[in-house]
Amino acid sequence: MELKQYDVLVIGGGAAGATAALYLGRYARTVAVVGKDLGATCNAGEIENWPGTKTIGGMELINNFQDHSKEYGAEYVFAQIENIIKTEYGFVVEANGTKIEAKTVIFANGTLHKKLEIPGEAKLVGKGVSYCATCDGMFFKDKEVVVIGGADAAAKATLYLADVAKKVTLIYRRGKLRCEPIYYKRIDKKNNIEIIYNATPEEIIGEEKVKQIKIKVEGEEKIINTDGIFVEIGALPCVKLSTSLGMNCSGKGYIEVNSKMETSIPGVFAAGDITNTPLKQIVTAAGNGAIAAYSAHEYLQKLE
Amino acid sequence: MELKQYDVLVIGGGAAGATAALYLGRYARTVAVVGKDLGATCNAGEIENWPGTKTIGGMELINNFQDHSKEYGAEYVFAQIENIIKTEYGFVVEANGTKIEAKTVIFANGTLHKKLEIPGEAKLVGKGVSYCATCDGMFFKDKEVVVIGGADAAAKATLYLADVAKKVTLIYRRGKLRCEPIYYKRIDKKNNIEIIYNATPEEIIGEEKVKQIKIKVEGEEKIINTDGIFVEIGALPCVKLSTSLGMNCSGKGYIEVNSKMETSIPGVFAAGDITNTPLKQIVTAAGNGAIAAYSAHEYLQKLE
Repeated sequence: MELKQYDVLVIGGGAAGATAALYLGRYARTVAVVGKDLGATCNAGEIENWPGTKTIGGMELINNFQDHSKEYGAEYVFAQIENIIKTEYGFVVEANGTKIEAKTVIFANGTLHKKLEIPGEAKLVGKGVSYCATCDGMFFKDKEVVVIGGADAAAKATLYLADVAKKVTLIYRRGKLRCEPIYYKRIDKKNNIEIIYNATPEEIIGEEKVKQIKIKVEGEEKIINTDGIFVEIGALPCVKLSTSLGMNCSGKGYIEVNSKMETSIPGVFAAGDITNTPLKQIVTAAGNGAIAAYSAHEYLQKLE
Repeated sequence: MELKQYDVLVIGGGAAGATAALYLGRYARTVAVVGKDLGATCNAGEIENWPGTKTIGGMELINNFQDHSKEYGAEYVFAQIENIIKTEYGFVVEANGTKIEAKTVIFANGTLHKKLEIPGEAKLVGKGVSYCATCDGMFFKDKEVVVIGGADAAAKATLYLADVAKKVTLIYRRGKLRCEPIYYKRIDKKNNIEIIYNATPEEIIGEEKVKQIKIKVEGEEKIINTDGIFVEIGALPCVKLSTSLGMNCSGKGYIEVNSKMETSIPGVFAAGDITNTPLKQIVTAAGNGAIAAYSAHEYLQKLE
C-alpha cells in the first residue's frame, strides 16, 4: 500500500479543520485533511453570523475555507477513517487505499446528528425521516412536516421548511424554545408554523413512508399526520477515533482541550465541535482551528 | 449629563468587539460599542488569513464586521473612555458627554504599539518615526526606510514598504526572523531588502526630521542613514481601564480569562488581544468575541 507522509494530519474539513489547514500551510507545513463529509455540519442552510458576511450558504462558506487552505498547499482526501494508530513517526491512518502518516494530528471531526431512538425511526430514514432540512426540505414542497427540537438548529430548520412546506409543526420537550431570540421572533411572524410544547415523540408510524408521529403531550398521547419528520435535537461527538487513541474526554465524549487546544496526548490537538468548547459556532471552531495549527507548528519545531 | 442604558457595553470595536456586538444583537441584547480607534490593530494592510477570504484590506474587513453587527442594532460611539465605575445598575463610563451605563461589560480594547524607548524616538514621531507602515508608507515613496522588529508585523511592514520605498533595512535583535515562513520566503525574493541581525537600536538622530539611526551590531556601533523608521516590535495591552476595575491580569497586563471569557469580576468579560489568549489573530479574537457575548447573555439571563 502506498505511504504518504505529512507534518500534520487534520481529521475533518469543516470550519475548524479547514482553518487549521490554512494556518499550517502558511506555517509552511505539509497537511492532509481527511474526512468523509468534509464540513457537513456547516450544511446548515444560510449562515448569518459569520462576522462580516451578512448572509452566505453554509456549503459555499466551507468551500471558501477549503479553497483558501488549498492556496497554501493543503491536500484534501474524502474518506472515512476507520482506525488511527500510533507509530514511531507519529500517527498513521488508512484512507482510500493509501496510508497517511503524520507527525502530529488535529482532531476536527465534529459531531453527528443525535437520533430520537424511538420505534419506526431507523426503518423510515430517507423515507420521510431526515436529519437535514436544507438537504431534504425540497422533497416536502406544499406538504406537511414536523420538526423535533427547540434549539438553534430546530428553529432554523423550522423557518427554512416554513418557506417550502404547507405547514410546519414544531415539537419540543420543554415549555419554551431555547434558540436565539432572533429566530423566535421570525417563527412568531409565520402563520404556517404551529409549536407544541412539553411534548415528546414516542413512535414514527408508516410502512413505505412516514404517515404519522405519535407524541405524548403533558401525559396525553396524540397522533399527528405528517409527510416528513426532521430531527434536530442536537449532536454527539464522533468518538470512535479519539477513544481508540485513549485521550481524555468528557462524559459525553467531547475531547478535553486546554487553551492551546492540546489534548492529553502529546502531538495530538483538537478543535471545533468535537471539543469541550463552551460555544459551538463556525467562528469559534475557526478560531480554535487556528490555535490548534499554531500549537501543532510549535510542537513540530521542538522535534526539529 | 444625558444617561443611556444598555444590556452590554463593549469596549473596543475590532474583531473581538464587533463579533461580540453581532452575537449580542442576535441574542436581542442592547449594545453600545465604545472605543477611540475602533479596530485599529486590524489596520495591518492586507489580511490573508481570514478564513474563506483570500485577501482583503484590514480596514475593509473590520468595517464589514461593524456593519454586520449594526444590522442587529449595535450602536458605535467613537470616544476615548477615561474611567469605568461600578454602579448598582452595573458599570458606567463617559463618552462624548454622555453617560453610558450597562449591566455587563466586555473588554475588547486590544493592544497598543510598543515603543523603542530610545533617545530621539518621542520627538521624531510623525517626523519620520511611525508605528504603522500602511498608514504612513506612502510618505516614503522612493526613499530609504528602516523597519525594527522580526515577527509578523515587522515582516508585513517590510514587504509593504519594499513595494513603495527604494530600499528597506530590517533590523532585528535576534539571529533569525520569527515571522510566518511565508513572509520570510517573500522577503527573500525581494532585492531591495537588507536584513541586519543581532542588532539593537540605540538612538534616532535628526532635528526636524529623521536623518539616521544608531544601532549596535554584535557590540559594534553603526550609523545608518534613513528617511523613515517603522517600529514594529510588538504590542502591550491597554491596561488603564481593566486595572482600575481591579480584575486579575498577567504580569504584562493581559486580562486573565477562562474558556468562557469570564474575568475575575462577575459581569465582566474579555476577548481578543487584551486577554491571555495563546494566539493573537483576527480569527481567534472573533471566536472569543462570540464566546464573551454568549457568556454575557447567559449572565443577563440569570439577572432576569
